Amino acid sequence: MPAAPLRLGLAGLGTVGIGVVKILEREADLVAARAGRPVVITAVSARDRSKNRDADLSRFAWETDPVALASRDDIDVFVEVMGGHEGPARAATEAALAAGKDVVSANKALLAHHGQTLATQAEAKGATIRFEAAVAGGIPVIKALTEGLAGNRIKRVMGVMNGTCNYILTRMQAAGLPYDQVFEEARQLGYLEADPNLDVGGIDAGHKLSLLAAIAFGTQVAFDAVELEGIGNVSIDDIRLADEMGYRIKLLGVAQMTGRGLEQRMTPCLVPTESPFGPLMGGTNMVMLEGDSVGQIFLRGPGAGMGPTASAVMGDVIDIARGIRLPTFGLPAAQLTKPVPARSAAAAPYYLRMTLLDKPGALAKIATCLGEAGVSIDQMRQINQKGDEDDDAIVLIVTHKATPADISDAMARFGATGVLVGAPVAIRIEEV
Amino acid sequence: MPAAPLRLGLAGLGTVGIGVVKILEREADLVAARAGRPVVITAVSARDRSKNRDADLSRFAWETDPVALASRDDIDVFVEVMGGHEGPARAATEAALAAGKDVVSANKALLAHHGQTLATQAEAKGATIRFEAAVAGGIPVIKALTEGLAGNRIKRVMGVMNGTCNYILTRMQAAGLPYDQVFEEARQLGYLEADPNLDVGGIDAGHKLSLLAAIAFGTQVAFDAVELEGIGNVSIDDIRLADEMGYRIKLLGVAQMTGRGLEQRMTPCLVPTESPFGPLMGGTNMVMLEGDSVGQIFLRGPGAGMGPTASAVMGDVIDIARGIRLPTFGLPAAQLTKPVPARSAAAAPYYLRMTLLDKPGALAKIATCLGEAGVSIDQMRQINQKGDEDDDAIVLIVTHKATPADISDAMARFGATGVLVGAPVAIRIEEV
Repeated sequence: MPAAPLRLGLAGLGTVGIGVVKILEREADLVAARAGRPVVITAVSARDRSKNRDADLSRFAWETDPVALASRDDIDVFVEVMGGHEGPARAATEAALAAGKDVVSANKALLAHHGQTLATQAEAKGATIRFEAAVAGGIPVIKALTEGLAGNRIKRVMGVMNGTCNYILTRMQAAGLPYDQVFEEARQLGYLEADPNLDVGGIDAGHKLSLLAAIAFGTQVAFDAVELEGIGNVSIDDIRLADEMGYRIKLLGVAQMTGRGLEQRMTPCLVPTESPFGPLMGGTNMVMLEGDSVGQIFLRGPGAGMGPTASAVMGDVIDIARGIRLPTFGLPAAQLTKPVPARSAAAAPYYLRMTLLDKPGALAKIATCLGEAGVSIDQMRQINQKGDEDDDAIVLIVTHKATPADISDAMARFGATGVLVGAPVAIRIEEV
Repeated sequence: MPAAPLRLGLAGLGTVGIGVVKILEREADLVAARAGRPVVITAVSARDRSKNRDADLSRFAWETDPVALASRDDIDVFVEVMGGHEGPARAATEAALAAGKDVVSANKALLAHHGQTLATQAEAKGATIRFEAAVAGGIPVIKALTEGLAGNRIKRVMGVMNGTCNYILTRMQAAGLPYDQVFEEARQLGYLEADPNLDVGGIDAGHKLSLLAAIAFGTQVAFDAVELEGIGNVSIDDIRLADEMGYRIKLLGVAQMTGRGLEQRMTPCLVPTESPFGPLMGGTNMVMLEGDSVGQIFLRGPGAGMGPTASAVMGDVIDIARGIRLPTFGLPAAQLTKPVPARSAAAAPYYLRMTLLDKPGALAKIATCLGEAGVSIDQMRQINQKGDEDDDAIVLIVTHKATPADISDAMARFGATGVLVGAPVAIRIEEV
């Protein structure tokens, strides 16, 4: 008795959608063997039917409107790889759930903004939403967190989850080029979203972090509460000087539940070059999951691209074909608690860079400010520029562990000394 | 309507078993929320009831015989954390399956030797066998491979999967100590199995590799076909000299399907210090899964210990409680093909070390041997010992890519030159 095929409606025929088509063309038998039943695409949708897409789409029914696709009788699973957190993607996903279809989505923005509503809607209809492809590309991190580590109280989630930002930062370092120039390169290479701020502003990575945090801590997705800072202010000077002191700069996400509430931040941080995050180059992503029993698990792999993202979509599709059905965020939506957002308060070492006027006692004034703010110094280096006696000096300081509040206090005190040229830079050092 | 609890029978109250008891004591509510139903231990077994185990076992029924435990009416899942591939562990697992119980096992040896039989038996009874804890401790690698990467044709699996061996090798390197001394340290620290050859002979890691290979390539487990070489012959000289040339020595497993058959080897290899495997210290494990769509995924974490292994057991238990049921090796047992074992034939660079008599033309003879064997030289260093002119010289060579057969040919030719002191060493360099 051959099992009935699982029928997909595929909304979106960009890179990821075509990747899914290609896997099912190339490996239909392997997928059927693993899934226990054939997996077939029955219908697709995209805006422009005439576009050349390097794949034979002639045997699929065509819908111009993804909402119409979502509720077709001849699909079991709605696969959404269009993107956008409002508009057609949202309407079609809601239509699919209303029709009782399961949903596989690569849409981090949609889930970060409407995850709770969609999860509730899915449960009311007995449908399931899967979104492995929305976080960290081909790395099965949602599965590891929701299932593999289900016996753990999760203590912390960290991750480098935007390949474009990591490409820009590592390219700046490797080539010694300033941000603006590498940003332009990335744009020309097609690495940036249409709205580049989604990447370099940390928004895309913040979406992903908020999804992981919801699963990790059993809370409703709270993207609005993520402390976001993009990479636009990371200077080549800091990259170079940090490197000399044994650190790399990463756009690093950290989520943890503290006594004061849920901390979520996606900000540029220094990490030790020797740490697992240190050597991460280009578009590679890495996520660290820390559980009370398991300790720290690191998952590393390609964060984007046709193959990796389509691999994640297919993993979800095959799970559904195999009958694996879980609540969207690991717990029933009604059990997800509304998190109390908390600003990061945990102490960490900080990297400080400032330019001092060439005045007697300037450095002593800075040291005094730090002392008054309760911040102690681990390493200090003074770099006299160009060997010219009259030139201002760059001072680099690595502090011992200090709270963000103490660092803010010190920065305010620096301003009052009158010995600084320009604004000082402070970047948190995150040690795994 | 509260869901019925999932009832466990726990065979084995060593470190891992007690770890499971503690998680269920500490996090019963969290586990129940994630599993969708309570998870309880109803009965346990171990040889010695009177032993102090740092956990309250008084509310569990006690069986001295795990076979009796396995078929009790009041258990749904038989959790086997005893170890041993014959005797009580095998008998009890078979009894559990015969009684239609699901099985969660940490027993790599049992599955490596009897996986096909057990998988067939489980399917006949509609039972499921899960064994995340058997491979790479707390890292959810079985899940990543079987489920997350199910849409990929797997090209290669690599891994450092025996923490004791990695501890010994990295301790030798860090402290500059010879193998025998570090082996003794490891024994005193309790890191070694009762039969240390299971660890240092590569057998335990070979068991794990054979399980991953079965899932990756859809083949019957073929532990007997794993090329095994332990770490007993790795010298501190090679560790030190390789380090100077930018390499680390690891007990590395590689499995891949080639046109000639299934290659599986677990042998000491050099890896570039800069590669993901290079910085792996102590008991940490790492597995690389390479799929045609996803590319390379690296998973890193603690390879053993109470918490990590109990975490893996609980992940499997919660999957079963959630109704996730898959064939043991990802495909129905009858569909797993019998693999044709193939010796490794792929070319790789090699590290060669030899001691040459202080004779004119000695080095030229070695170079000639390599040329005749079709092996070309990438790097060569000669180290004159102790600065004494009469002393023999150590020669280090890194070859360009060469096949194992060509290297064997060269090694045989070296022997015939009469210029070598002792036996030459050849170690494969595995570049990820």
